[in-house]
Amino acid sequence: MRWEELGDEDCSVARSLSVFGDRWTLLILRDCFMGIKRFDDFMNDLKLSRTILTDRLNKLVEHGVLKKEPYQEKPTRHDYKLTEKGLALHPVIMAIVQWGDTFYAENGEPPIIRTHKKCGHDFNAVSICSECREPIHPHDVKVRGNPNSVRKIKETQTGT
Amino acid sequence: MRWEELGDEDCSVARSLSVFGDRWTLLILRDCFMGIKRFDDFMNDLKLSRTILTDRLNKLVEHGVLKKEPYQEKPTRHDYKLTEKGLALHPVIMAIVQWGDTFYAENGEPPIIRTHKKCGHDFNAVSICSECREPIHPHDVKVRGNPNSVRKIKETQTGT
Repeated sequence: MRWEELGDEDCSVARSLSVFGDRWTLLILRDCFMGIKRFDDFMNDLKLSRTILTDRLNKLVEHGVLKKEPYQEKPTRHDYKLTEKGLALHPVIMAIVQWGDTFYAENGEPPIIRTHKKCGHDFNAVSICSECREPIHPHDVKVRGNPNSVRKIKETQTGT
Repeated sequence: MRWEELGDEDCSVARSLSVFGDRWTLLILRDCFMGIKRFDDFMNDLKLSRTILTDRLNKLVEHGVLKKEPYQEKPTRHDYKLTEKGLALHPVIMAIVQWGDTFYAENGEPPIIRTHKKCGHDFNAVSICSECREPIHPHDVKVRGNPNSVRKIKETQTGT
C-alpha cells in the first residue's frame, strides 16, 4: 500500500492518519493546542524548513482541520486556527501526552501540568467507555465488522 | 529540528512521537490491537516493503512497545506482542478511531464496531478529566510549566 492510498481505506485509523499521520503534522497540532497560531511561531518552535511547514499547514487547511484568518494586510498574514474538526483532535493529543508522561517523564515529573478550568484541578486525560464510563482495557474489547459498512472484518479480540 | 532529535525534547508529545510518530508505525500498532502478531500477517495487511516493516517492528521492540516471542524453531519465527507499555497506547489508537469514525465514516457507518466485554455494550472511547470525570473541552485547559521539570513554558490557554 502506498501512503497516498491510505485515505481510500475503509478504516478509521488509516483515514485519520492520511490527514495527520505525517511525521511533523502531529507536532504542528500539538503547537496549535498550545496556542500557537502564526507561521513564524511554528517555525521558531519546530525549526522546520519553510517548505515543509507551508505544505503541512496547507494540507491541514485543505482537510478542514485548520482555518486561515487574516490578522494583517499588505502583506496579508494569517493566523492558523483549529476548526471544530481540529479541536476534535484534542483527545488524540491528550492520549499521546498521557503516554509520554507515563513512560518518558524524567524523575516522574512531566514537563507540563494541565489544569481543567471547569473543576479547577490539575488533571490527566483518561479514556473511558461511553456506555459504562469505566476505563477500557484493550483485552476487554471485541471488534466486529459493521454489516452496514463495506469492509468485512472477522470477529476478534484486541491486544492478545 | 531534525526528526532524530525529537527523543531529546522535554515534551511528552515529541518524545512519544519519536517512538511511534513514523508514518507506518501507528498502522502497525493498529494491527497489533486487532490481534495481528506475525510478520507475514502484517505484510499482507499493510503491503509494505519487508525492509520497512522489519525496521519498524525492530524499533518498537527496542523501545519496549512490542516483545518477540518464538512460536517456531528451525527456522525461528516470532510473534510480535504488545507489552504493557504497548498496551498503554490503546487510548491513542482509540482516540484516532473515534476521530476517524466521526469525520470519515461513510453514511455515518463506521467500518468496525467495538463491544466492551465488561459491560456488554457497543461503545466509543471518551476522553475525560481524571479529577471531575467530565469530558474535556480544549478551551477549558490551562497549561503551565512544571517547576520541577527542565523546560519552561509560559502560562497559556490551549485551542484559542
